Amino acid sequence: MKHARVVYNGSIHHAIEKKGNMQLNDGQIVKENEVIWLPPVGPRTVFTLGLNYVDHAKELDFNVPKEPLVFLKGPNTFTGHLSKTYRPSDVSFMHYECELAVVIGDTARNVRKEEAYDYVAGYTVANDYVMRDYLENYYRPNLRAKNRDACTPLGPWLVDAQDISDPMNLTLRTYVNGAVTQEGTTADMILGVPELIEYLTSFMTLSAGDIILTGTPKGSVDTKVGDEVVTEIEGIGRLVNTIIGEDTLTKTK
Amino acid sequence: MKHARVVYNGSIHHAIEKKGNMQLNDGQIVKENEVIWLPPVGPRTVFTLGLNYVDHAKELDFNVPKEPLVFLKGPNTFTGHLSKTYRPSDVSFMHYECELAVVIGDTARNVRKEEAYDYVAGYTVANDYVMRDYLENYYRPNLRAKNRDACTPLGPWLVDAQDISDPMNLTLRTYVNGAVTQEGTTADMILGVPELIEYLTSFMTLSAGDIILTGTPKGSVDTKVGDEVVTEIEGIGRLVNTIIGEDTLTKTK
Repeated sequence: MKHARVVYNGSIHHAIEKKGNMQLNDGQIVKENEVIWLPPVGPRTVFTLGLNYVDHAKELDFNVPKEPLVFLKGPNTFTGHLSKTYRPSDVSFMHYECELAVVIGDTARNVRKEEAYDYVAGYTVANDYVMRDYLENYYRPNLRAKNRDACTPLGPWLVDAQDISDPMNLTLRTYVNGAVTQEGTTADMILGVPELIEYLTSFMTLSAGDIILTGTPKGSVDTKVGDEVVTEIEGIGRLVNTIIGEDTLTKTK
Repeated sequence: MKHARVVYNGSIHHAIEKKGNMQLNDGQIVKENEVIWLPPVGPRTVFTLGLNYVDHAKELDFNVPKEPLVFLKGPNTFTGHLSKTYRPSDVSFMHYECELAVVIGDTARNVRKEEAYDYVAGYTVANDYVMRDYLENYYRPNLRAKNRDACTPLGPWLVDAQDISDPMNLTLRTYVNGAVTQEGTTADMILGVPELIEYLTSFMTLSAGDIILTGTPKGSVDTKVGDEVVTEIEGIGRLVNTIIGEDTLTKTK
């Protein structure tokens, strides 16, 4: 089953997919273009992997890290399907990152990789944009690189884990204005989903609703204002985002 | 005024200080030792400063960073006054860090330092324990160093900003088993509270309930199982924590 969180008629609803349409939890059937999509899970703790595909590390001219490079992202960074992400005025290279997002379903501590899938609720698609100007070295998760407002689209759907037979063998693709610019497979992750859960739970507790963004394969391309960027994962979904200029944002106060 | 969040009779209450006692929001007066203290703010996004006091950077033999080193902490790491924090079995150096915690009171974006205090709700005390074994370099906010469960006590009270005349001139002290082991002043911060708010809001939005942990002065000392560690900031509060062994933790599943 596929789950979403959407705004319809001014209220937040949970919804499921129903034959290409959307059924809200009050039973109403609506069309996908009648709602505002939110991230399918209200983000709690979100982990992001740096350099978890060998080909992407090479592309950035970094050595492959000896242990997982994991950073946290704040709730301000998340936005939903069909949203707009701004390109900051002061950056010269902003690229997308198509990533498999793993949503944790239960409290997890000291989990062995053989049992790790028991703790997964499902999967969705992330586009983990990065302002590469601020990637000074791979130890540095500068917040200006990865934690701008609304720079991490997530969705559209959360797909139940039981519906994905092998999450470690899915094709990822990014399209910029309709042309494929990134293509890879989750089979190329350095640490796969079970290993990441084993690693994180070896020193801390994961909780239901926590999300792991598992890294991106090679294919970094600079994006510009006006681009439509679609990140797609086989069997999981197709997440659409449009890039706008920073000057179109409204300022607070 | 001073505010707390506590568990009393199995429920979470908001409370204020009343002549050395505690008044719950239903009007009941209780004693401070009759409650379980939670962090005074349910942590949302929490920023932690690395090396924001020159003397502490020297003590760790790191150069002073050219720009703020800011990392995020996850909600699993927070615990309240009078709590217990475990020392992991596999670390050889775990030290406390007494830090002024700044709680944001309003949505803030592109705030100039001259107006930054308008966005502060209040202050509390943090003890930002670190497993120094995993501090490989100062770019590296390894989650094993800073994001273990319950390794960041916060509290006891949130003190209203209006009650603190100069947050940039407060004495910080840490006591281990009653002896002073760390002493400094917020006057020695490299970037003060207004500059930190200006920096963060120059590229992202801060929201009410966000917290900035502003770094610690020199005075790192290894701590051991059984130690009572008290982090204290003049006019803000005295936060008590006890270190237990990892083997006394109950495992999940």
